[in-house]
Amino acid sequence: MSPDIALNHSQRGWTCTFTRVFVIALSVTFVATAAAQEPPNRPNVILIFADDLGYGDLSCYGHPTIRTPHLDRMAAEGLRFTQFYSAGIVCTPSRAALMTGRHAVRSGLSEESPRVLFPDSGGGLPESELTIAELLKQANYDTACVGKWHLGHLPQFLPTNQGFDRYLGLPYSNDMDRVPTSPKGLQAFLDPRSDYWNVPLMRDTKIVERPADQTTLTKRYAEEAVGFINEHKLGDKPFLLYLAHTMPHVPLFRSREFENVSRRGLYGDVVEEVDWSVGQVLDTLRETGLAENTLVWFTSDNGPWIVKGLQGGSAGLLRDGKGSTFEGGVREPGIAWWPGTVKPGVTTELGSTLDILPTACAMAGVELPKDRKYDGYDLSSLLKNGEASPRHEMFYYRGQDVFAVRQGPWKAHFTTQIGYGGQPEKHDPPVLYNVELDPSETTNMAKDHPDIIARLTDLAEQQKKTIEKVPSQLAIKLPE
Amino acid sequence: MSPDIALNHSQRGWTCTFTRVFVIALSVTFVATAAAQEPPNRPNVILIFADDLGYGDLSCYGHPTIRTPHLDRMAAEGLRFTQFYSAGIVCTPSRAALMTGRHAVRSGLSEESPRVLFPDSGGGLPESELTIAELLKQANYDTACVGKWHLGHLPQFLPTNQGFDRYLGLPYSNDMDRVPTSPKGLQAFLDPRSDYWNVPLMRDTKIVERPADQTTLTKRYAEEAVGFINEHKLGDKPFLLYLAHTMPHVPLFRSREFENVSRRGLYGDVVEEVDWSVGQVLDTLRETGLAENTLVWFTSDNGPWIVKGLQGGSAGLLRDGKGSTFEGGVREPGIAWWPGTVKPGVTTELGSTLDILPTACAMAGVELPKDRKYDGYDLSSLLKNGEASPRHEMFYYRGQDVFAVRQGPWKAHFTTQIGYGGQPEKHDPPVLYNVELDPSETTNMAKDHPDIIARLTDLAEQQKKTIEKVPSQLAIKLPE
Repeated sequence: MSPDIALNHSQRGWTCTFTRVFVIALSVTFVATAAAQEPPNRPNVILIFADDLGYGDLSCYGHPTIRTPHLDRMAAEGLRFTQFYSAGIVCTPSRAALMTGRHAVRSGLSEESPRVLFPDSGGGLPESELTIAELLKQANYDTACVGKWHLGHLPQFLPTNQGFDRYLGLPYSNDMDRVPTSPKGLQAFLDPRSDYWNVPLMRDTKIVERPADQTTLTKRYAEEAVGFINEHKLGDKPFLLYLAHTMPHVPLFRSREFENVSRRGLYGDVVEEVDWSVGQVLDTLRETGLAENTLVWFTSDNGPWIVKGLQGGSAGLLRDGKGSTFEGGVREPGIAWWPGTVKPGVTTELGSTLDILPTACAMAGVELPKDRKYDGYDLSSLLKNGEASPRHEMFYYRGQDVFAVRQGPWKAHFTTQIGYGGQPEKHDPPVLYNVELDPSETTNMAKDHPDIIARLTDLAEQQKKTIEKVPSQLAIKLPE
Repeated sequence: MSPDIALNHSQRGWTCTFTRVFVIALSVTFVATAAAQEPPNRPNVILIFADDLGYGDLSCYGHPTIRTPHLDRMAAEGLRFTQFYSAGIVCTPSRAALMTGRHAVRSGLSEESPRVLFPDSGGGLPESELTIAELLKQANYDTACVGKWHLGHLPQFLPTNQGFDRYLGLPYSNDMDRVPTSPKGLQAFLDPRSDYWNVPLMRDTKIVERPADQTTLTKRYAEEAVGFINEHKLGDKPFLLYLAHTMPHVPLFRSREFENVSRRGLYGDVVEEVDWSVGQVLDTLRETGLAENTLVWFTSDNGPWIVKGLQGGSAGLLRDGKGSTFEGGVREPGIAWWPGTVKPGVTTELGSTLDILPTACAMAGVELPKDRKYDGYDLSSLLKNGEASPRHEMFYYRGQDVFAVRQGPWKAHFTTQIGYGGQPEKHDPPVLYNVELDPSETTNMAKDHPDIIARLTDLAEQQKKTIEKVPSQLAIKLPE
């Protein structure tokens, strides 16, 4: 090395140092600028999740006597999906999929029996799973879970151990922990009293009320949600709010203000209070000025529990309900709202609760981990610009089995079974419906479309290959 | 009589004469003023009537894949009824009721067999009946009928002899006059061609095209309607336009522009063209400035013809369809629109096609004749001010029999029979549904409500007593 070169080297070193300082300074400036601009880049996310609400239960989805003015307005101002799917046919698997962006079978939470977690269950959403809350935490989100959890009630499974800063709600369904002295059979549901079900209301990891006064649950959830939003009114930190209503799952309860307000009876009263609660959330966003920086989703976990008669909801023109892989079991009201960003309208594009996590992460700038398979898609361009959905298929699981698969308008049922009762019936060739032409699934078109049958069968096989065997969480019982 | 008195009398006579002249002058002034103000007092009336459209077939009534943006906008700007009834379960009686404001049984147009007029029928709407067109003529309305008539095709029964200044359309259903060489059975409907049905298109009393090119019917009806509205753009004379679409009755036809536009297939294409046509009418009203002085109703004649499979529509969550006295047979989309006058919203109040005539007459200042029984109500205060509907009951006729009656939310079925096929089944006590609590008519509540059963039974008996026996028009055949 010549002195010249050494000198040059030294000079270059100085230059490098200068450049590095300059770059750091620039970076600091950039970070500061980014911080100032953060809100548009990291929207608040609110997921409002109803329980057992049917596709046909809202006024904006055609119900004649349930009045839902707040959800109707949300739909008019936002994007109303007509083909939006929950990823589970009953509570627990549906919620596992929503929280993880992955089919519940991947986390051991989809079985034929038992289908959901019970008070004597010892399992839950494994800690190895990453919830939407854990992922958004990477982007510095404040996170709250309000309402029904149903992904495990032992401490390690509760929301506060799954990425949520706080929790208020029931750890499982409101028809569990039934007391032996309650009226027999259906009678308890026809004229329900909170003390017939000894369900706990929890704050974080502690039981704060038992039995929970279910009449005021919807109202208290709303208050909790509004309080959490108001804490963020300065807009200095983005937040995730997961508001999972206990209602309209049976037993049906509503507060005094909603007694006998609906022509649809008790079920209608309950849905109308949930609608009111949606209004509380959206009004708070408007009043705090956060609306223009908040993406709100409204949907439900699965179709209506139609075997409950007038205590259950309606899937409208769709076939069957909760527990079934017919459309009525999983297709749900789905509304996305973000004033100024989500283009108002009605869309027939496909969407799923599986897509909520990837969409939220994309908007928050959080990369999805590469170490696991995701089943959801980023719907940002559909929401913002009305572009075609990246989702073209849907897999309909019952337990660990793919009962049906949809691609485009075509849906092949390999096995059918009504939601509650009945026996599974295998179909070879599968029953084929065009669910856009024939939303009520009445007309089997398998005979004329062997090519489509072959493609959908292959799709189901490919899907099954992506499923790794994991321990069943639903089979685990609490130690005696 | 004293001279004073005589004088006084004479003076009084003069005074009287003066007063009379003054009053006449005032009256002339008042009439002239009234003439200048006429438009607000005598709104234009447009009835858009679809054929066999189901309660669940519009996007704003919850259909997932039929896109109806124009009707959705009409609903958003107007009043959307969720409990609006046609007064007939099939074409002819429904149209008789619409045109007369009276149940079709009063004009001899409601029988069990035949249920409608056919090309070989010699009967029709009796000239003694007064149509909405004849009544509005008393208030100097121009009147046009465009589309399907189906109240008699002999000259004396045609629209131009029933109060309409002009007529363009098919005199009966588009599936009549089938030619013997057409493909057998359902095949002709699956891939329909206009020349399979030798139906005439009439202008006034003359056949101008046979077989009618059905592919362009919806488009030509729209053009005729738009032309008629444009003729009145000066607003100097009020008009009645009855636009009765031939579609979506099978065979299903649409123009080239609507081929394969809908995910709901041929049926969807056809409904989407009807929706486009509604847009044409409303846009013309907006462009001519007539919108603020025009009441537009949209509804259909009866429920979906569900036995036609994918060629028929959907009643959404309602039970059964066309031909049935279950809700799916008669409850219809019902939208009233009049910018600035009809209060936008959704209403669960009752309304019926029977009410359209009395409402229009009230708005036009035409008194209903006292020599006959009317079955409709003036809905003006509901439309304008959102007040409670004066309609509290509905009678469900099948043929000449009252199969069911509704009062408030309660509906008693005295006889049930599925729309097509099946046998009538009498019920004693009647089957009782609360159709607001239980819109799908699933849960018989007769056992717990003998008082309501008694009241509804009495109501049906009272109703039957108002029916005078008249000759059946449907039984009359053309002379050989």
